[in-house]
Amino acid sequence: MPHLHVASSARLPVASRLRWPHIRSERGATCQGARGLATVAAPAQATHSPPPLDSKVPPRARGARELWLHDKAYEHGFYQSIAKIMQWRDRYVEDRTIFVRHEEMVDLMRGLGAREEDFGRLQVVSDNLQTDPTLPFRKSRTGRFCMDYDRQSLRRLEFQSFSLSAAEDFKRHDSDTVRVFDEIQEDLHSNTVLQGLMIFKAMVMHGVPTMRRPNFDYGANKWVCTMFNLRTLTRPDILGEPALEGVHTDGVDHTMTTYPGSSNMTPNSAVTLLHERDETTGTPFHETSPNKIYGRAQHTKFLDTLLVADHEYKHSLSPVYAVDEAQEATRDMLIFFTRKPVTEGHIMAGSDSLKSHEESPLDIPLFTLPNGECAD
Amino acid sequence: MPHLHVASSARLPVASRLRWPHIRSERGATCQGARGLATVAAPAQATHSPPPLDSKVPPRARGARELWLHDKAYEHGFYQSIAKIMQWRDRYVEDRTIFVRHEEMVDLMRGLGAREEDFGRLQVVSDNLQTDPTLPFRKSRTGRFCMDYDRQSLRRLEFQSFSLSAAEDFKRHDSDTVRVFDEIQEDLHSNTVLQGLMIFKAMVMHGVPTMRRPNFDYGANKWVCTMFNLRTLTRPDILGEPALEGVHTDGVDHTMTTYPGSSNMTPNSAVTLLHERDETTGTPFHETSPNKIYGRAQHTKFLDTLLVADHEYKHSLSPVYAVDEAQEATRDMLIFFTRKPVTEGHIMAGSDSLKSHEESPLDIPLFTLPNGECAD
Amino acid sequence: MPHLHVASSARLPVASRLRWPHIRSERGATCQGARGLATVAAPAQATHSPPPLDSKVPPRARGARELWLHDKAYEHGFYQSIAKIMQWRDRYVEDRTIFVRHEEMVDLMRGLGAREEDFGRLQVVSDNLQTDPTLPFRKSRTGRFCMDYDRQSLRRLEFQSFSLSAAEDFKRHDSDTVRVFDEIQEDLHSNTVLQGLMIFKAMVMHGVPTMRRPNFDYGANKWVCTMFNLRTLTRPDILGEPALEGVHTDGVDHTMTTYPGSSNMTPNSAVTLLHERDETTGTPFHETSPNKIYGRAQHTKFLDTLLVADHEYKHSLSPVYAVDEAQEATRDMLIFFTRKPVTEGHIMAGSDSLKSHEESPLDIPLFTLPNGECAD
Amino acid sequence: MPHLHVASSARLPVASRLRWPHIRSERGATCQGARGLATVAAPAQATHSPPPLDSKVPPRARGARELWLHDKAYEHGFYQSIAKIMQWRDRYVEDRTIFVRHEEMVDLMRGLGAREEDFGRLQVVSDNLQTDPTLPFRKSRTGRFCMDYDRQSLRRLEFQSFSLSAAEDFKRHDSDTVRVFDEIQEDLHSNTVLQGLMIFKAMVMHGVPTMRRPNFDYGANKWVCTMFNLRTLTRPDILGEPALEGVHTDGVDHTMTTYPGSSNMTPNSAVTLLHERDETTGTPFHETSPNKIYGRAQHTKFLDTLLVADHEYKHSLSPVYAVDEAQEATRDMLIFFTRKPVTEGHIMAGSDSLKSHEESPLDIPLFTLPNGECAD
Repeated sequence: MPHLHVASSARLPVASRLRWPHIRSERGATCQGARGLATVAAPAQATHSPPPLDSKVPPRARGARELWLHDKAYEHGFYQSIAKIMQWRDRYVEDRTIFVRHEEMVDLMRGLGAREEDFGRLQVVSDNLQTDPTLPFRKSRTGRFCMDYDRQSLRRLEFQSFSLSAAEDFKRHDSDTVRVFDEIQEDLHSNTVLQGLMIFKAMVMHGVPTMRRPNFDYGANKWVCTMFNLRTLTRPDILGEPALEGVHTDGVDHTMTTYPGSSNMTPNSAVTLLHERDETTGTPFHETSPNKIYGRAQHTKFLDTLLVADHEYKHSLSPVYAVDEAQEATRDMLIFFTRKPVTEGHIMAGSDSLKSHEESPLDIPLFTLPNGECAD
Repeated sequence: MPHLHVASSARLPVASRLRWPHIRSERGATCQGARGLATVAAPAQATHSPPPLDSKVPPRARGARELWLHDKAYEHGFYQSIAKIMQWRDRYVEDRTIFVRHEEMVDLMRGLGAREEDFGRLQVVSDNLQTDPTLPFRKSRTGRFCMDYDRQSLRRLEFQSFSLSAAEDFKRHDSDTVRVFDEIQEDLHSNTVLQGLMIFKAMVMHGVPTMRRPNFDYGANKWVCTMFNLRTLTRPDILGEPALEGVHTDGVDHTMTTYPGSSNMTPNSAVTLLHERDETTGTPFHETSPNKIYGRAQHTKFLDTLLVADHEYKHSLSPVYAVDEAQEATRDMLIFFTRKPVTEGHIMAGSDSLKSHEESPLDIPLFTLPNGECAD
Repeated sequence: MPHLHVASSARLPVASRLRWPHIRSERGATCQGARGLATVAAPAQATHSPPPLDSKVPPRARGARELWLHDKAYEHGFYQSIAKIMQWRDRYVEDRTIFVRHEEMVDLMRGLGAREEDFGRLQVVSDNLQTDPTLPFRKSRTGRFCMDYDRQSLRRLEFQSFSLSAAEDFKRHDSDTVRVFDEIQEDLHSNTVLQGLMIFKAMVMHGVPTMRRPNFDYGANKWVCTMFNLRTLTRPDILGEPALEGVHTDGVDHTMTTYPGSSNMTPNSAVTLLHERDETTGTPFHETSPNKIYGRAQHTKFLDTLLVADHEYKHSLSPVYAVDEAQEATRDMLIFFTRKPVTEGHIMAGSDSLKSHEESPLDIPLFTLPNGECAD
Repeated sequence: MPHLHVASSARLPVASRLRWPHIRSERGATCQGARGLATVAAPAQATHSPPPLDSKVPPRARGARELWLHDKAYEHGFYQSIAKIMQWRDRYVEDRTIFVRHEEMVDLMRGLGAREEDFGRLQVVSDNLQTDPTLPFRKSRTGRFCMDYDRQSLRRLEFQSFSLSAAEDFKRHDSDTVRVFDEIQEDLHSNTVLQGLMIFKAMVMHGVPTMRRPNFDYGANKWVCTMFNLRTLTRPDILGEPALEGVHTDGVDHTMTTYPGSSNMTPNSAVTLLHERDETTGTPFHETSPNKIYGRAQHTKFLDTLLVADHEYKHSLSPVYAVDEAQEATRDMLIFFTRKPVTEGHIMAGSDSLKSHEESPLDIPLFTLPNGECAD
């Protein structure tokens, strides 16, 4: 009955740790070795037992700042997080939308293995935004990723230009135009919380059938995830509109929005309304029909996250208002558009490359069960 | 906020289920489809989204009575079971032995997907035992399996004869002799609880380094699991000894014993004592040294399970005594010996085939995280 | 390590239970006695150890159909339910409204000790409604209860007439009139799920400060809970309006609505909108301001429950529409109005008795921690 | 959906906390007030809602260093701890003994509200031990407490002298002699972990019937808990024997031993063996019968805790051996003897006072459900 490993020892006074050399050296030593395995050096493992992932080929060298689920392979807390995510998936299957609050999202990201320092880094990353191709009250950067189930990995994809058309229920002065956004930089690319958010989204939407859009390749075993880091600004001379276009959809299958933070913003700012599909596209937020409203959400705390089946609801947002109207108000957002690769006839055809990003590669495991392959 | 899927609906009166067609047909219908995906037909899935396992190659046709972890890929309860098993693994790393009780073992087997009817079937399977090659007070059958991490699967292996030698701290009249046991039959082979027990053992021992024995190939990514289904008998004319050899080891790396049941057995029967390695091999149970005893365990309820790092402790058992001494007393047991494949010089060299069993194939997924392969 | 009690034994085949007499009779017997204590006869307890509740005075004779929390005093599942309810309380403190879904509510009621048969009984109880004093499209019954923390109990109170006035943001043809409803009958009074719902509400609202209304005695350690069982009817000749009055409040501190079921009702019926307090009282559901909407809820499954701090939001509901318009559509509801006792000047002054109901008494424990009294 | 309270905020970078004033002031403010209630000033509560405990009389002024369960009345984690303790109680009912490991015990103490600093304080408190009345290799202090279910409180009792007799299966040179131990001092008396340990023990043994001893008042609703803080010493000139008397019982109903720590002690020191009652009292540890051993336990980490039904098993311990034999080895222990008050004929009759300790009073709530009293 003795010798329980003490995950909590670090939280105890030094004195207590000084008092635990009582494990017989031989076994104790081995134990520590064993424990180490669960969290560290693969080489060490290779010397005495199968590595946690039982790779069929040696895994490629991993980057220093990549979220590697395998690090958690032996930790029960990791699987408790997976269990919670599957409960969110159940609800997403039912409602086609979920709102995960700050506190739980932080716990889930920790459970997936996000690094503590990256929570703080994510809150200030939007300070480095510079411009937006078409909107004066917004700053933006973009990054493209592939949830590639053929490789069971999340890959960053090379840059492409971006367009949204009226055909996707998006009516704005810049509809159908080709927009060229700045790319996200190392500070966001290397954030394990950002990586965890996409792994989370992949798990929740996995295997959830939704109403299909035309010109998407639903037979593909890959998803394109176009990610935007946005800052909406309101100043005395300009009103920041997170959705100037009023009621709209994003032209994808699954939209996720996660909140890094804001400044000088009133509590009634940037409210999101979900509308039934029969609400008229382009209707201003304040003129929508109460009896066509399906839900309301407001991002108010770090990592508050909304996920919506984008073709099954429309949505609209209220403007960003300043508490101190003489000062600038900012509202930052991380938006993840996810859809199947496009086919001919789609406005994005020709700018939907699945090539990996060469200058800033990222290629980390998604969560999947082992494949059922048992070939001889 | 509406439309939560109701796992508990089956437990509610019919009236209530009759009252739930209120989900709008379009979404509701899709939902049911989605739910179905988590538990049923792969073909249905293939039509609209990646299958739960994202196989790189189509999984081989599965048998009707195989435990297929993928069936649970979307169920949060499955991951809660994995989390509990990882907690047991933590303890095993520390103590090199765990005892999992009836109740929790039943829950874990359910969590892994074992079929309800197989719990009852496992309790009577020992009634079909016939003979034992060397012991008059025992009936036995054996089966060989491979925890094959190169294929991430649990495979049944072809038949081989069996030997235990004094070199493995096993001293009995039949040490070093070649024993030929009957093979387990379909009734046990096809039991999803039996399959779950081996998947459970594979998870708990995975990546846990133990003291090494000579002539084992510790570099191999496979484990040989020799499984025995035993019935020990005590009659007026004979005393059943689960361990006639007294203090011993089983000559493997990890030994697991699971209890299907017994009949007419006294409460003080078949007690297991764990001894430090410096206890003398062959010492009778009742003559062992109290200060070399590491633990005591007794299997008394269906599925009580003991797991021990076999080279780090020795063990002994007390006899089976009858409550009604005029009648036969029986004590059934499932024993799982697991070790690395042997190398030259080991008594089993030449009878340690890794070929799959041809007449009764079994090849089901083990639990592993996806491999880290992200090759271009 | 042996002898784990098996709560799950009932779920196992008879065979297995037949195989568990292995616990030594003396201890085993005692154990069974001990287990019994947690769930049964007080007299048996009194003979050997303090009863689970350590009453300072013998508890009064309990009725056969009363929910008695003490029955769960030793069950870990009971405290897990309390933990979940406290998590809901945290959210209620933050948002001033929560929506608890069917599935979880069923689990919570089970956790508190509700009887299985009462879930079915609650779904049909509304069939016994007869009349409504003022509304042609509604049938109703009422019951009054006191969450009496001076006695740590939930008591049924004697009958009183009912009124709602414009002063409480309730504008309807029958505002300020005195309405006399039928009383609830034994079939609802004795339902342990109904009792559990009020115990649940008491726990969630306990110690949660809300905006105060005039003429309530906020110093009192008691709450008056006026409960209504309602059926709204839509027929070819009449439209059922759950809230004919449009935007309104209920003139209390905490309003809870729980859904027993409905029939022939369309999915877009009886949607609840929560409005900010500056929405105009009396505004029809479909004319409310989108930017004053705080939330939307819809009761669609048995026991779906909405709780709202009634003075901090206003609410409105959409009508009940029939699927088959030639037939009657019904929508049943349990409504729990809870407020402090009124003082002079309140319209209910003079009809707010705290006397127990004489013909149909109910007096069961609320959940509280022991008082801190440690007098000598 | 917004505004989830963030228990984890403290763990987040300052930046994030700076970004959470977005809760509308009016509601947000109230929320904070509400949250505060769960953890702080009763007066504040009194102004607006029933205090968490609904005392029938104002609780007495509490000391600064008393564990007050009411502080946790609204915290879900508290009830999760209670649930875990009830699971341990289930096992105690079955086995009559449990061993709770370091890590879980620390979590349970935190869950009950023990102060962080008291974990460290408890590890060094034994340094202040001075003498023992009869044993040269031991230092000791004692304190007497009453688990008083008539008052639902844990009280410290006035000092009394101590005796153990052969009648209680305790055979040692000082059997039957009256021993006068030093009293525990403020440093231990005021430790909320020590207080939590007794509250934990009271919950686990509550309502668990055990084999009765003669001359105890089993009708009493009170338990006497005699607590010892011991340090066993081994030096070149003397061997420390935690149980010089060999196989014995402690003459009570429930014995609990909790480990604060040790120094220079070998891993095989101070092993506890549990023996069946038919083992001969006085038998040395190393001469006991293997087939009468029921279990083995060893305290090796801070707060490792063993609980035993003292009249249903006997126990013995191995000596304390020094790693560096030239130096002193120490092994500290907290022992809690709990039994019903004695009646005439018991050796302790006349020294079993139930009077509260005057110089060092302690009177804190035990965990109980509210009494069922619902008198009119």
